[in-house]
Amino acid sequence: MAKLWDKGYELDAVVERFTVGRDFILDRELIPSDAVASIAHVRMLAAVGILSETDTTQIERELRTIAMDGGRRAVPISPRDEDCHTVIEARLIDRLGEVGKMVHTGRSRNDQVTAATRLYTRESLLDIFEAASSLVTVLVNRAEEEAATVMPGRTHLQIAMLSSFGLWLASWGEQLLDDLEFLRTAALLNDRNPLGSAASYGTPLPLDRELTAELLGFGQVQNNVLAVQHSRGTLDGRILEALAGISATLGRMAQDLILFSLPEVGYVVLPEELCSGSSIMPQKRNPDVLELLRSRSGIVDGYATQCRNVVRNLPSGYNRDLQDTKEPLLRGLATVEESIVVATTLMERVRPDRERMRAALNSEVFATDYAYQLVEQGMPFREAYKRAAADYSQQELPDPEHARLQRRSTGTPGALNLDSPRHRLEGQQQFWVEQRMRHSVAVHNLLGTGETIRPSVEAQHS
Amino acid sequence: MAKLWDKGYELDAVVERFTVGRDFILDRELIPSDAVASIAHVRMLAAVGILSETDTTQIERELRTIAMDGGRRAVPISPRDEDCHTVIEARLIDRLGEVGKMVHTGRSRNDQVTAATRLYTRESLLDIFEAASSLVTVLVNRAEEEAATVMPGRTHLQIAMLSSFGLWLASWGEQLLDDLEFLRTAALLNDRNPLGSAASYGTPLPLDRELTAELLGFGQVQNNVLAVQHSRGTLDGRILEALAGISATLGRMAQDLILFSLPEVGYVVLPEELCSGSSIMPQKRNPDVLELLRSRSGIVDGYATQCRNVVRNLPSGYNRDLQDTKEPLLRGLATVEESIVVATTLMERVRPDRERMRAALNSEVFATDYAYQLVEQGMPFREAYKRAAADYSQQELPDPEHARLQRRSTGTPGALNLDSPRHRLEGQQQFWVEQRMRHSVAVHNLLGTGETIRPSVEAQHS
Amino acid sequence: MAKLWDKGYELDAVVERFTVGRDFILDRELIPSDAVASIAHVRMLAAVGILSETDTTQIERELRTIAMDGGRRAVPISPRDEDCHTVIEARLIDRLGEVGKMVHTGRSRNDQVTAATRLYTRESLLDIFEAASSLVTVLVNRAEEEAATVMPGRTHLQIAMLSSFGLWLASWGEQLLDDLEFLRTAALLNDRNPLGSAASYGTPLPLDRELTAELLGFGQVQNNVLAVQHSRGTLDGRILEALAGISATLGRMAQDLILFSLPEVGYVVLPEELCSGSSIMPQKRNPDVLELLRSRSGIVDGYATQCRNVVRNLPSGYNRDLQDTKEPLLRGLATVEESIVVATTLMERVRPDRERMRAALNSEVFATDYAYQLVEQGMPFREAYKRAAADYSQQELPDPEHARLQRRSTGTPGALNLDSPRHRLEGQQQFWVEQRMRHSVAVHNLLGTGETIRPSVEAQHS
Amino acid sequence: MAKLWDKGYELDAVVERFTVGRDFILDRELIPSDAVASIAHVRMLAAVGILSETDTTQIERELRTIAMDGGRRAVPISPRDEDCHTVIEARLIDRLGEVGKMVHTGRSRNDQVTAATRLYTRESLLDIFEAASSLVTVLVNRAEEEAATVMPGRTHLQIAMLSSFGLWLASWGEQLLDDLEFLRTAALLNDRNPLGSAASYGTPLPLDRELTAELLGFGQVQNNVLAVQHSRGTLDGRILEALAGISATLGRMAQDLILFSLPEVGYVVLPEELCSGSSIMPQKRNPDVLELLRSRSGIVDGYATQCRNVVRNLPSGYNRDLQDTKEPLLRGLATVEESIVVATTLMERVRPDRERMRAALNSEVFATDYAYQLVEQGMPFREAYKRAAADYSQQELPDPEHARLQRRSTGTPGALNLDSPRHRLEGQQQFWVEQRMRHSVAVHNLLGTGETIRPSVEAQHS
Repeated sequence: MAKLWDKGYELDAVVERFTVGRDFILDRELIPSDAVASIAHVRMLAAVGILSETDTTQIERELRTIAMDGGRRAVPISPRDEDCHTVIEARLIDRLGEVGKMVHTGRSRNDQVTAATRLYTRESLLDIFEAASSLVTVLVNRAEEEAATVMPGRTHLQIAMLSSFGLWLASWGEQLLDDLEFLRTAALLNDRNPLGSAASYGTPLPLDRELTAELLGFGQVQNNVLAVQHSRGTLDGRILEALAGISATLGRMAQDLILFSLPEVGYVVLPEELCSGSSIMPQKRNPDVLELLRSRSGIVDGYATQCRNVVRNLPSGYNRDLQDTKEPLLRGLATVEESIVVATTLMERVRPDRERMRAALNSEVFATDYAYQLVEQGMPFREAYKRAAADYSQQELPDPEHARLQRRSTGTPGALNLDSPRHRLEGQQQFWVEQRMRHSVAVHNLLGTGETIRPSVEAQHS
Repeated sequence: MAKLWDKGYELDAVVERFTVGRDFILDRELIPSDAVASIAHVRMLAAVGILSETDTTQIERELRTIAMDGGRRAVPISPRDEDCHTVIEARLIDRLGEVGKMVHTGRSRNDQVTAATRLYTRESLLDIFEAASSLVTVLVNRAEEEAATVMPGRTHLQIAMLSSFGLWLASWGEQLLDDLEFLRTAALLNDRNPLGSAASYGTPLPLDRELTAELLGFGQVQNNVLAVQHSRGTLDGRILEALAGISATLGRMAQDLILFSLPEVGYVVLPEELCSGSSIMPQKRNPDVLELLRSRSGIVDGYATQCRNVVRNLPSGYNRDLQDTKEPLLRGLATVEESIVVATTLMERVRPDRERMRAALNSEVFATDYAYQLVEQGMPFREAYKRAAADYSQQELPDPEHARLQRRSTGTPGALNLDSPRHRLEGQQQFWVEQRMRHSVAVHNLLGTGETIRPSVEAQHS
Repeated sequence: MAKLWDKGYELDAVVERFTVGRDFILDRELIPSDAVASIAHVRMLAAVGILSETDTTQIERELRTIAMDGGRRAVPISPRDEDCHTVIEARLIDRLGEVGKMVHTGRSRNDQVTAATRLYTRESLLDIFEAASSLVTVLVNRAEEEAATVMPGRTHLQIAMLSSFGLWLASWGEQLLDDLEFLRTAALLNDRNPLGSAASYGTPLPLDRELTAELLGFGQVQNNVLAVQHSRGTLDGRILEALAGISATLGRMAQDLILFSLPEVGYVVLPEELCSGSSIMPQKRNPDVLELLRSRSGIVDGYATQCRNVVRNLPSGYNRDLQDTKEPLLRGLATVEESIVVATTLMERVRPDRERMRAALNSEVFATDYAYQLVEQGMPFREAYKRAAADYSQQELPDPEHARLQRRSTGTPGALNLDSPRHRLEGQQQFWVEQRMRHSVAVHNLLGTGETIRPSVEAQHS
Repeated sequence: MAKLWDKGYELDAVVERFTVGRDFILDRELIPSDAVASIAHVRMLAAVGILSETDTTQIERELRTIAMDGGRRAVPISPRDEDCHTVIEARLIDRLGEVGKMVHTGRSRNDQVTAATRLYTRESLLDIFEAASSLVTVLVNRAEEEAATVMPGRTHLQIAMLSSFGLWLASWGEQLLDDLEFLRTAALLNDRNPLGSAASYGTPLPLDRELTAELLGFGQVQNNVLAVQHSRGTLDGRILEALAGISATLGRMAQDLILFSLPEVGYVVLPEELCSGSSIMPQKRNPDVLELLRSRSGIVDGYATQCRNVVRNLPSGYNRDLQDTKEPLLRGLATVEESIVVATTLMERVRPDRERMRAALNSEVFATDYAYQLVEQGMPFREAYKRAAADYSQQELPDPEHARLQRRSTGTPGALNLDSPRHRLEGQQQFWVEQRMRHSVAVHNLLGTGETIRPSVEAQHS
């Protein structure tokens, strides 16, 4: 049995790695959020008389510096530090002595990390919504431009009926608006104050949860303190499901574009700057970005799976398991934001090959039109269907533009009704604009400067 | 290579089984929904002049009979029939001759099945919400009764802090309210008219999508016809995620009750009628219902996985793959509805053992209270924490009721603030009451009788 | 709160439905397996002196009749019966009186259902392997026929390099051989005797587990009785993962064929009898079977998810949760068997369009060949790569057959090396042939007739 | 539409981050593996006459230095470098000029990364098996020591029947042996040479795939070059499923220990050094390590999901999507290795509280024994069952040791039969010992020193 240690595992290091996990890396993202939440917490402690004004001012000043340093990724966390909460508290004690030891009064690392994560997530979701909103706008505007760009519509990937590039573009915009409904619901539930729930059962101190909610710009206090605990991991899973929904839509849109850009099909031309070469085949221009949009859909789904798995059938009250939902959440947020930005560039620049689209309109495309013509002449549909099946290939091809304009029902190629997605988008924006406002004001008030708490991505990758 | 057929597989039967799948069983659920949607469709065809009033009246009458027969599970579908659409159209032609052949004008099986499924789903979701609403009410009312029933709260499953059975009960009610927010979002997107989208690209006929929406009581027309297609499977997955969220909450609540009813813990007594015996051990009373609530959480999640898998990276426009999301959807709806009803009975009847709960309140439960007492006497939290760790077991136990009432922050054991979940529930009910109204009126108007379209479950199982 | 019951739920019926679940339907599959396992059990009880020979003979005779009736689907199970174990025991008592009450001695429903399920699964896996073996043979044989059928190989779905239809066909055969390795591992673990583990901890009776293992043809006794219990659900999940692996391979093969049969690509012609029409578009011939092979891959994965979910973090010893892994297992077995049979028909009949394949070999296909020509003339690869990128389109196209034969490395289009998959298949067959032998002999000996225990599928669907 | 860029996204940076993903971080793990595979490749190029001996020697020398630097984590990769292949090739060119440009002859980044990943994975799986083998040994040895430590066995988490701590310990050892069967299958398929498959279709150069296989110590050449491509992602998923199986077993074992260490149950005492405290509750000793073993089971499952998702229905031939399976694979390998090592420490040190276990043996535990006593006195089981249900609590408790020894069937508490798992383990070890030998010899021969290629973990975390 000595054998195990022959492999040279150092037990302490292994246990440390196992329990700390990747928190020491992930928490670099959360430092400003944690500092902001801590400022609100100490202001509340002062308001209810637990902390003196002088102490509060000192702590607050130091927390602001930490927030700023964290925003520049200048607060290192080593595995030995475990997490950002320890680092922040240690720095307060280091700089302020006894006073620094007051900050943890009336909270647990549990509600502390929940608060920081929700603030961080709120800002991320805002950024994601705003990026997605741009993408929807691009899709709808381009749909308007391409409303008359006729092309074959496919079912079973076979050529089926008359469609248009405009219909196709707008369809993804409208699907995204569906996806964004779930994002809004997730954002609504995220925007609630967990502070004061402590380790799951509250504390005997007279903590003012409404005040921290107000200071942090939360829409509400999340009422039952044990329900706050149920939310950890659970809500992360719901947020990731909403994100995975967006990612799935981008993946399907990308899948279509990959098919449209098959050399044999050639309906679209991809922006050169989003293609890449091969290390072995000199001639290749590959749609890598599209393929990665496709694969990321499966990746983000896996993050949601992780959160669902971790909380499924978990006993109530805090359990350490919950530490493991932080990484899927943070990675999911980053992945989907990137994906949307890339997809927007793509959709702004992709160009239809109108000639090839039109040239692909063969007699099959119009077989149903022909059947309906017979119906309009009084033939029952099932008869018309049979006649058309026999004769369609001998019919003269109709003028595609005329055929398109015959589609007059709502939402068809002849009547895209783009006001509908535009109004839906406006409706959604109201919710987010209001949340952005509250977020910016709260951050600004607490930090005394700035309106955002997410560290710069560029700094991370340099 | 002849070997394959030596196994005696009959090719036609195998291919039929493979392509028909379980539609011939599942579609028994959908017959009234399909008939109702078809009535709206023919009325619209009459309104735009494609169908004569006489033909319409005949078709409508026959469809009403079909709906009624389907509601009694008296419309058989054999594998050879494939699905309910074929059966219904065949019966119309059988009874009405040429006239029956008109009904499929201006639609495809694709928008037909989508419409029927959405109507069926709308009614299911209404029933599910109403059942869940009862469960929330039970939980909140019982929380009120048990507000003063003190018990140890656990973290890491170890005894941690003072809690109450009331806090525990209300926490699940509030978590369910969170879950129901996603159900509402799903219901909102489900409540849109897909008719007129046909095989994905609309038709050249002057179909009035607004009229069928109105007749069927849909909240809106789903605008872009290709986006309607994107919804198939996708929305099923979202609905199942919302259902899986509810199921996950019930599973966790059940997990807690299983732990609370461990003989060594004994905090609760389960209703005898929900327990069962063992085939080998004569003495057992087992919490089977709780275990099945727990396992169903994993099962419903698997249904959502199936829908997500089927649509991931699927090319746009109709693909036959989408047939395979029907079973997970229908099974998920039924499973969650049953689970909620069973959970409600359970939560109505489960009884706390107040003595054992109170007897479990040991010095550990109050260690944090003691630390905070020191804090209130002016000691910095980190000092108080260390002192309490050393001394807590020598302290006299405080009166639990007094300790409970010291918790005054919102949502803690001393201040459950049950108005909060009650108001949330009322807020949610408005949405569903309005949708129920539209649904009932539409069904009644189209069928001339009744207000529901789901076949009786009892009939199925007898 | 009276409201809940206003919905007309009948509590007893709901609880019954919830706890019985679909066992009363699923168990129809398991009756002969359960009867066979019971025969072995009573023979063992006789051998260790717990049951008299006369009683044993009576019970055995009745169990054989039950097995035969069950094989014809002539043993009804109602929801009230709960499951097949109850039905069988009830029938024994009904026919044999007191003697029937002896059969459950020394076992629990837990090891009973595990034994029956493993026997059923063993036969299913044998059938699945044999079907898959035929498919591999078809693929390899056809690869041999099509070895010289050159076509473009794609990367990123763009045209990339010279390939052949033979390479493509054989590649799926070889991938299936990989998948089948996991099936073998799963079958090996399934082929162990669970009897004697009772409710998880064995019994004080002198049960002879080796004897029941021998009678039932199990390869081994599964040793630790609590580990037997850990296997429930867990092994189901592993079996389903192996099945999902096969299904995923069929799905990808189908995806390729869907792309190859795009009208613009046209590399293959699908067998007409496996295509179907559209209810709205008269001209369509759709590759439905391919699309369903694709979707089933996602469905079977969902079944595996369900099993994994149910057992994740389940406490040891029997828990009722395990009932819920039966349906995904049985459905997964049936789905994958059907899929393989359909895929085999498909792959026997699909025809390449050799002219279109060859016509698609453009200068891009040979750009790398050109670069390597320059390398062989002494140019460093990175130089050659650059030159080829600039010049490839001006080069004369080489003779494709000559280019193909230049590929001489193992497993390339010029050297498919089909002996490799053939030898692998033979190697795998040995394992299964031996298991089939044991299975058939055991079933025959116990039933006195026949060699199989799965009820006829055709009977189910008639 | 200008709005998007107002958010300050820098397009190039975003696209770079999106396409490079985390390869620039992950590939730091793969540098020595890639260098080793490259040495084999150039030796083969020399053997077939494509590279001169002088050039080969130069390249090889430089690759050895790179391998060594990479092992010390001293080869930086920036996002701009993209991946390790680019960095290595760039360094070769930088150091060797023209000669460096030869190394990519006859391969693509696709087979290059596959080869490197397989080598890395082979070593990881060996380490994992060896760690798991130690854990099995610990479990079996401790089972022997605790064979007579009687305790109640539970079903439905209720007290059910006599069990022993030895049975419980061995049961996990035996379940792990099941899990390891799948790991072996995965390792077998991983141990095949992908080199020579290039971008999926081979090359026209006379590459000797058997030679690179031999040099790299691969068990076989993976034959069909397109099937090599199908393996990417697919095999990663299978490996992760096998790892998730192990992780699930550890999670369930941990779940049991969490329950056993409930204060009310108190069957076990956890090693202090594996527990941790609370930031708010001074009294707490929490089983964090157990909880993280439990949550990691869900995390690893999510990695497997990601791989399955990415390859599901992916067209054949290389697609960029496959880049995204690298991270889940590498993370899964690391997570499971850590988990096993931690679990081994845990299982070495966990101590049963024999008194509490024995004190928990109440009349319920022996109710079935009592029923069987009646059976042995001639009563039919169903009668005995009823009588026992009525009387059991009045019976005198038997001597537990006597009762235990009455269990004589294989694998029960009275007959653990630990030779069985010991023999199974030995059987499995043969496979891995042989693979380890080949791995070590190959690495040593190619590098001229050392036997391993995984960079030091400690270096990474310092």
